[in-house]
Amino acid sequence: MTTIEFAKGHGTGNDFVIVPDHDNSRPLTPDEVSFLCNRRTGIGGDGLLRVIPTAAYLEDSDTAPAADLTGAKWFMDYYNADGSVSEMCGNGVRVFARYLLEQGMASGDHIKVATRAGIKEVRIDGDNLVVDMGPAEFGPTSQASLEGYAWPGQAVSMGNPHLVCHLGSQAEVDDLNLHTAPIVDKRIFPHGANVEFIAGEAPHIHMRVFERGVGETASCGTGTCAAAAVALRHSAGPIEPGTVATGSCRVDVPGGTLHITVTAETILMSGPALIVASGTVRL
Amino acid sequence: MTTIEFAKGHGTGNDFVIVPDHDNSRPLTPDEVSFLCNRRTGIGGDGLLRVIPTAAYLEDSDTAPAADLTGAKWFMDYYNADGSVSEMCGNGVRVFARYLLEQGMASGDHIKVATRAGIKEVRIDGDNLVVDMGPAEFGPTSQASLEGYAWPGQAVSMGNPHLVCHLGSQAEVDDLNLHTAPIVDKRIFPHGANVEFIAGEAPHIHMRVFERGVGETASCGTGTCAAAAVALRHSAGPIEPGTVATGSCRVDVPGGTLHITVTAETILMSGPALIVASGTVRL
Repeated sequence: MTTIEFAKGHGTGNDFVIVPDHDNSRPLTPDEVSFLCNRRTGIGGDGLLRVIPTAAYLEDSDTAPAADLTGAKWFMDYYNADGSVSEMCGNGVRVFARYLLEQGMASGDHIKVATRAGIKEVRIDGDNLVVDMGPAEFGPTSQASLEGYAWPGQAVSMGNPHLVCHLGSQAEVDDLNLHTAPIVDKRIFPHGANVEFIAGEAPHIHMRVFERGVGETASCGTGTCAAAAVALRHSAGPIEPGTVATGSCRVDVPGGTLHITVTAETILMSGPALIVASGTVRL
Repeated sequence: MTTIEFAKGHGTGNDFVIVPDHDNSRPLTPDEVSFLCNRRTGIGGDGLLRVIPTAAYLEDSDTAPAADLTGAKWFMDYYNADGSVSEMCGNGVRVFARYLLEQGMASGDHIKVATRAGIKEVRIDGDNLVVDMGPAEFGPTSQASLEGYAWPGQAVSMGNPHLVCHLGSQAEVDDLNLHTAPIVDKRIFPHGANVEFIAGEAPHIHMRVFERGVGETASCGTGTCAAAAVALRHSAGPIEPGTVATGSCRVDVPGGTLHITVTAETILMSGPALIVASGTVRL
């Protein structure tokens, strides 16, 4: 039996097991990640954030990183609750930055975090942490199938794949049964997608999300960005192809509220991130 | 903000936040219990076990204890996840005993734990912890209403109130939607009841349980005892009023397996109990 350090944190109810490994000496198997994220027999979380040096990640990685990561000291080695690897998580990176700050592993108003989707910069704004999530890339329109209904949606990449479905009313969103996964088109999403169901119009929408490999979660950072980008475009009316519908949009998710700002170049996400507990856990 | 110690443990997936308070100096409000048991924004558990000296409990308590508790050094101050107080929890007391053992707060093969339902003795049997749960008291027959169906059931007290409903097949049990609480008769259960749905016959039954104040759980110790007592009586055929149908019964719950032995005097429950993690948490 091994005993390892952990912490637990969340951003708007999107919660994470944090496992520091300062010398990258204790990789976790998918089964170990899945155990740690199990809410009854482990710690419990929507995902797991290993904290390792970027240099160690670059040495170990057998695939070339998506971008130059050398400007960030710490790498967010992110896993879904089922043990699968994921590129990036917007609430995760804010919780990760809060952890670095509280541990004295980073300081100042701007924290750089290396991720599989490149370096993410987190800005401290009072109690909120603001992360530059990078721009949304719009893909084709598609649909999500759920319990015999097909909901039209917009494919959006935020580094990870999303399908944003705009429903007619908040009641329709509230009434969805998200105990089972919405089915998405494998030709457009060969590795699946997070599916966001939204209601309302910019600058204020409501959203529920089903994260691939996890299930319904209280919040999803990249999902709120994708949703806000779609809502802002929808409100903007006809726009030139290739241009971005800019503006701000509040997104209410089951776990709280995030504020999204879409600029011509990127998307900023602002909201709280907390470290709740820390200790040791047996593997 | 206060920082307190905690541990997390489980018995067959019935999980608990454990909060040691050796001098009973930090009572928890219902809101704090509810926060600590929240699976996303807190630690997460079906219930919470405060570890306090029995002497301190007896000094503080404004109601007379149900039984003489002076023979047990430590009191299991048990709360449901919603912050309400509960008398007793069979998996909880086994996890509590495991915690005392690991902390060196108790030793030997027989651990006495004071609870609101009297002193419970936990016997160590290899990896299993066996708890004397006391006898089952059969009440009237009644029914549970769920999604428009009425399931006949047997009222059983194990110190806390249960309604055991025997369904025709495991498929019927598996198909139940336990996202909402089964409705029980307030005349028989003025404070509600845990409702067990079982299938099969002694000596091997399957069970799902809805715990009042919690929801569906992976396991419920007193519930498996009540269920085994009902299953054994059912298999015994007609018996004299006032006599007990004795024997052993394996009970498979979603979180694992417990072995129940019903004697003329009492009921023994045997199964694993693990401490998974420990640390500090912010209130």
